[in-house]
Amino acid sequence: MKPIEDCVVGIVGLGLMGGAVALALRPLKPVSILALDTDCVTLDAAKAGGIIDEGVLAGASRGRESDEQTAALLGRCDLVFLCINPATLIRFMDTRMDAFRSGALITDIAGIKGNIVTAVEKNLRPDLDFIPGHPMAGSEKGGFARAEYCSFLNRNYILTPLKRNKPENLDFLKGLIHRMGFGRITETTAEEHDRKIAFTSQLCHVIAAALIDCEADKEITRFGGGSFEDLTRIAMLNAPMWTELFLENKTELLRRIEQFEGSLDALKGLIAGGQGEALEQRLNAVRERRSAMNG
Amino acid sequence: MKPIEDCVVGIVGLGLMGGAVALALRPLKPVSILALDTDCVTLDAAKAGGIIDEGVLAGASRGRESDEQTAALLGRCDLVFLCINPATLIRFMDTRMDAFRSGALITDIAGIKGNIVTAVEKNLRPDLDFIPGHPMAGSEKGGFARAEYCSFLNRNYILTPLKRNKPENLDFLKGLIHRMGFGRITETTAEEHDRKIAFTSQLCHVIAAALIDCEADKEITRFGGGSFEDLTRIAMLNAPMWTELFLENKTELLRRIEQFEGSLDALKGLIAGGQGEALEQRLNAVRERRSAMNG
Repeated sequence: MKPIEDCVVGIVGLGLMGGAVALALRPLKPVSILALDTDCVTLDAAKAGGIIDEGVLAGASRGRESDEQTAALLGRCDLVFLCINPATLIRFMDTRMDAFRSGALITDIAGIKGNIVTAVEKNLRPDLDFIPGHPMAGSEKGGFARAEYCSFLNRNYILTPLKRNKPENLDFLKGLIHRMGFGRITETTAEEHDRKIAFTSQLCHVIAAALIDCEADKEITRFGGGSFEDLTRIAMLNAPMWTELFLENKTELLRRIEQFEGSLDALKGLIAGGQGEALEQRLNAVRERRSAMNG
Repeated sequence: MKPIEDCVVGIVGLGLMGGAVALALRPLKPVSILALDTDCVTLDAAKAGGIIDEGVLAGASRGRESDEQTAALLGRCDLVFLCINPATLIRFMDTRMDAFRSGALITDIAGIKGNIVTAVEKNLRPDLDFIPGHPMAGSEKGGFARAEYCSFLNRNYILTPLKRNKPENLDFLKGLIHRMGFGRITETTAEEHDRKIAFTSQLCHVIAAALIDCEADKEITRFGGGSFEDLTRIAMLNAPMWTELFLENKTELLRRIEQFEGSLDALKGLIAGGQGEALEQRLNAVRERRSAMNG
């Protein structure tokens, strides 16, 4: 892979994350940043703000001109970031496989990896390299307009490399990720990623949603001291995306919900039984365990 | 009540909250700030730092000299903040009722109000005024040494006034609370406080504890993107205090846990059944509800 300064970069989907990726890449001075999006207001704003150099209004039903422009744009990119929802990503890779520039490095940012890896690997052209990734950043407030508030600084990044990935491409991407501001990069398998993410991300979002689901009083935040606010901020979720993520990782997520229910039930039992000593012991163990974790 | 500049203030318990109260009162220039604590290192540090003017080493088994000093200190205070755990508070008020200065205004900061109000009202001297309060501030890292990091700025404050409270004392306390940095003050009953707090505070702590309880992997935070960290920071809880709070508010807390379990179960059912449309609808409703809440 040539240095980023010599690369044409393509960003597929200029939402919160696509926008934030473009913003993080700009100072690294790639030859140009091109973008595909379904929203012309976003593309115009991104061009006017100097965040991208060129944009193409894309989408399944936009007709032949858009189709050809999309293909032409992809054909120029040395590096492509797919910043779209999992199902859209899989469809996009199915439809657009022929359009990529030979030798291109493609990566994605989706919060689930197993189904994407399976689908993409099946049709991947031998002259392309696809390194699946998951930047652990985001915001409950989505959309391109919020991209500048989506910080990558010291955030985690997960990569789930394929056996066929070229080592030099993997090194290139890891270097780039750090230069975009991210902290720890963890390499693991797609399966392990989905198992862990079911806990740290999806379960947390289900819990936040359930907390809001069971309380209708808008004035309840008068009684908030920070913990309720912290636990439920992520309940302002992007419903279509999280529906996809929950359902695509259903088995693992259900397993994690049940584990959590088991622990909740144990604590409930100690409270109901008035078992102060055992409850205090269990809470002490929890405190120690959490204190030993980073972050 | 005379202006704060003419008051001698007493703080019973110089932990995280007692220390933070002292720090917030200091710039308001009371005549002096006196403190009772069971830890001489804390008292020495608070005196050396100019945070309190005098301190007495107190505690049930400290003998007659400490006992007399404690009584003498309380006898000088126009305003007393009780910053100790609920059970200790109830014992303290039982034992020390005779020691307070006539006309003194007493308030507390405990996270539960029903049992405290019942216990204190039973023996309250007619020449004293007790206004129960709950500043919605704190930190998962406790102790006097952390008091300076415990911000009151724009935090909520709940008061559960008694019928017998003097209106001028209530006005005085509300003015003082705002000058200490707090934002919204909500006046309600002790019962309503305990019902709401079971949800916004205790349930959230039980959930955070259950989340950590069901995952032993210390390296799990490599897969954290902020939501797991936000949801579980409060799992580093003060186990004896939270055991007290959970058990003292057992009925309400169990009711709230069960409500939450109901919502969690509903979401689980939609995920298990692969009901994408219904799930997306429910998540959308959650997002709208949370967005309409403050904070």
